Amino acid sequence: MSVAEQMAVIKRGTVEILIEKELEEKLAKSLASGTPLKIKAGFDPTAPDLHLGHTVLIHKLRQFQQLGHEVNFLIGDFTGMIGDPTGKSETRKVLTRDDVLRNAETYKEQVFKILDPAKTKVVFNSDWLNKLDAGGMIGLASKYTVARMLERDDFHKRFTSQQPISIHEFLYPLIQGYDSVALKSDVELGGTDQKFNLLMGRELQREWGQPPQCILTMPLLEGLDGVNKMSKSLGNYIGINEPADEIFGKVMSISDELMLRYYELLSDMPLSDLEQLKTGLKDGSVHPMEAKKALGREIVGRFHGSAAGDEAVENFVKRFRDNEIPVDMPQANFVLADGPLLLARALTEAGLTKSNGEGRRAIDQGGVKLNSEKVSDTNLELTAAGEYIVQIGKRRFARIVVS
Amino acid sequence: MSVAEQMAVIKRGTVEILIEKELEEKLAKSLASGTPLKIKAGFDPTAPDLHLGHTVLIHKLRQFQQLGHEVNFLIGDFTGMIGDPTGKSETRKVLTRDDVLRNAETYKEQVFKILDPAKTKVVFNSDWLNKLDAGGMIGLASKYTVARMLERDDFHKRFTSQQPISIHEFLYPLIQGYDSVALKSDVELGGTDQKFNLLMGRELQREWGQPPQCILTMPLLEGLDGVNKMSKSLGNYIGINEPADEIFGKVMSISDELMLRYYELLSDMPLSDLEQLKTGLKDGSVHPMEAKKALGREIVGRFHGSAAGDEAVENFVKRFRDNEIPVDMPQANFVLADGPLLLARALTEAGLTKSNGEGRRAIDQGGVKLNSEKVSDTNLELTAAGEYIVQIGKRRFARIVVS
Repeated sequence: MSVAEQMAVIKRGTVEILIEKELEEKLAKSLASGTPLKIKAGFDPTAPDLHLGHTVLIHKLRQFQQLGHEVNFLIGDFTGMIGDPTGKSETRKVLTRDDVLRNAETYKEQVFKILDPAKTKVVFNSDWLNKLDAGGMIGLASKYTVARMLERDDFHKRFTSQQPISIHEFLYPLIQGYDSVALKSDVELGGTDQKFNLLMGRELQREWGQPPQCILTMPLLEGLDGVNKMSKSLGNYIGINEPADEIFGKVMSISDELMLRYYELLSDMPLSDLEQLKTGLKDGSVHPMEAKKALGREIVGRFHGSAAGDEAVENFVKRFRDNEIPVDMPQANFVLADGPLLLARALTEAGLTKSNGEGRRAIDQGGVKLNSEKVSDTNLELTAAGEYIVQIGKRRFARIVVS
Repeated sequence: MSVAEQMAVIKRGTVEILIEKELEEKLAKSLASGTPLKIKAGFDPTAPDLHLGHTVLIHKLRQFQQLGHEVNFLIGDFTGMIGDPTGKSETRKVLTRDDVLRNAETYKEQVFKILDPAKTKVVFNSDWLNKLDAGGMIGLASKYTVARMLERDDFHKRFTSQQPISIHEFLYPLIQGYDSVALKSDVELGGTDQKFNLLMGRELQREWGQPPQCILTMPLLEGLDGVNKMSKSLGNYIGINEPADEIFGKVMSISDELMLRYYELLSDMPLSDLEQLKTGLKDGSVHPMEAKKALGREIVGRFHGSAAGDEAVENFVKRFRDNEIPVDMPQANFVLADGPLLLARALTEAGLTKSNGEGRRAIDQGGVKLNSEKVSDTNLELTAAGEYIVQIGKRRFARIVVS
C-alpha cells in the first residue's frame, strides 16, 4: 500500500498524530527499504480483563500489522514489580516475576484475538530497566527539567493546588520514554491521556541520538451509555471475554450515534463502506437495527469466532421472534453498590407488579421468565451487572439494567 | 566529660544545632552505654587542597573525637564517578576508581594532621550506592515531594527565576540523606549552606525507622581580608600545605578582630582561656601581636609540628629584629589577575621610589631586599599571591600584598 493509503488507515479514529510529516517519511522509508516500522504500545502489568475500551488501541495496532509493521506489545512490569513505593496505594500490589508472566499469558490470550501473533513481539521493560543502576537512573533524570515536567497536566494541577507530588512520580514518564530508547521504536500509540509520556519518548530518543518516534493518540471509547468513558467500575462496558449473546445483546442496546462511533473505532469495515452506511442510515435505506446486528456479529466474531457471530445474530432474532419480545419495553436501572437486587423488587420497580409480594407469587406460580428462562426461586437476586429481560406471562416485558 | 561539658565544646563556633535537646539525649545515652556517637561529614571526592576554611569543620570533628566519638569521614565518590550527567560542566570531570582512591590518600594526608586516625573511619558512599538499582532509586525518590524539594533555597531561587533545574539534581540531596541511613549516623556536620541536605538525612532516617540524626552547621570562615569567605579563587586563604613561615606570616597579617574569630573556630585554646585573652586585649594587658604569635604558633604547629611552630615564631621575631623591620609600614595591594607584577613597579606604587626606572637602578645597585633577601634581577616579577616585605637601603620598608 502506498504511503497515502497507509496514512488513511492510520488516521481513522486517531485523535492526533505527531508529527504527521515525519510519519509519512518513516512510512516511505519503510516502503523503500522493505523494513517494517517498530510500533510500540505500553500496557499495565496487572491482571488484564479487557473490555472494548481497551481494544480501540489494540485494534489500531492490528491495522499497523495489516500494513506490514511490527508491533512491540510492551508490558510495563518493571514498575509493577516495584509496586507503590510510598506504600499508600492498596491497589498497586507488588507483583512477582511469576505474577507478571501469568498476567502476560492472560494478556496474550486476549489480545491475540485481535493481533497477529506472528507480527507481535511481547516485551517486558524489566529486561532493560533491571540492568539500569542508580547511576543510570540519575543520568536519565538529568535529561529533563523540573519546570517542564510540571507542565504535564496532572502534575500542573496538583502542584498549583498544593497537592503533594512525590519525586519518584517524575521518574515514571522518564522510564516510559527510556523504553522507546531501548526499543528504538518508530511510532508509539497511547490514549489521549498519555500524550505527555509519549512525547517523552521523542525527547529521550533525541538525547540518545535516535530518530524521534512519531506518536499517535487514540480516543477514550464511550461506554454503553454513550456519555462516560467505558469502564468496569461504571458498568457501561462490554468485556471481551463475555459470552457471545451477552456481547451481542449489549451492542444491540447502544444508541445509533454510538454505533457509528464503534464502527469507526472497532470495526474492520473499510472507510468507504462506512461512508456508504452513514448515507444509507440518513436516507432510510438502511435500518439502524440491521447495522447494529452487523456490528454485533463482527465484534462477537472477533472474540468468539465468526460462527459464534452468526449464531449470536440468530439467537437474537429467534429470541425476539419466539418470545415475541418487543424491541421497546419499560426499563428500570439499578446499581449493585446499593445492595443485592431481589428479582421480585425489580419486577415492582419496573412496573410489572404492584408489590414485591405479587412478584413472589407470580414467580411461585411459574409465570416469570428471566432472559427467557423460567424462574422458580422466589428470593432470586440479581448479583451481576448486566442487562436482563424479565417477562410476566406472555406479553408483559421489562428491561432491567444492573450496573 | 558530662553532657553539659560536651555540649559546651560542641557549641563553640557552631551556627546551629538541630535539635539541641535530641543531641543532649544522644550524648547522655552514649555516656551511659559507653558507645561512641557516629559523627558523619561528607566531602567532595575531587582532589582536595585544603585551606583553613575547610578545617573549621574538620576541627569540629576533632573535638567530637576528643569527646570520645567516632568520625565517619565520608567521601562522596558515587556522584563523582558519574560526573555531570548533563555534560555541561567542564569542571565536573568523571572520576575513575583510581582517581577516587588517590584523592582519598591526599585527603587523609591532610586531614590526619587534625583528626585522630584511630577514631576516623574513611568511608566511600559508592560502597552502598553502587548496589542501589533503578528500583532502589525510585524508592528513595518516593520519600520526598517536589514542592518540599523546591523549598531548598537555591532550587527556589532558580525555579522562581525560571532557570532550569534538571530532575537529577533533586536526587542528589536524597542520596546524601540516604548516606546517613546507610551509616546510621547520629550527628551530621556541614556548612551553613548544607542545612537542607543535612535535614534530608533526618527525614530519610525516620522513613527507614532509624532515630533521626542531629545536625550541626558550622560557619564559613572569613578569609585574610576579614570580609569575604576564605577561598582559593579570592587569594585570601591560608593553605594547610603552605610553608611554615608563610602560614605564620599570613596569620600575623590579619586584623585583631579576625584573630579572635580564628581563635574561636580554629584554636584548641579552652573557652575559659579565650575569655581571659579577650579581657586582656581589652584592658591592654595582652598585646594583640603576642596573641597573634600564639595563634600562628598553634596553627603552624598543627600542620608542620610544634617544633616548626616555635621556629616560625623565632624566624619572625629574628627577621624583624635583625632587619629592624618596623611593625607599621606603608602597604600597597595588587591583584594577580591584573597581570604579572614587576617588583620595580611595586616599589613605585608603594611610594619607595618615584619611577620604575629608579627602582630598577636601586635593584641594580644591590640596595633592594625582598623578604630580607637581596634582589639582583631588575625585571623580577612577583607571580605568587602572598605578603611581601620590600626594603630599600637600611630604613625604608613597605608591605606588598598580592592576591
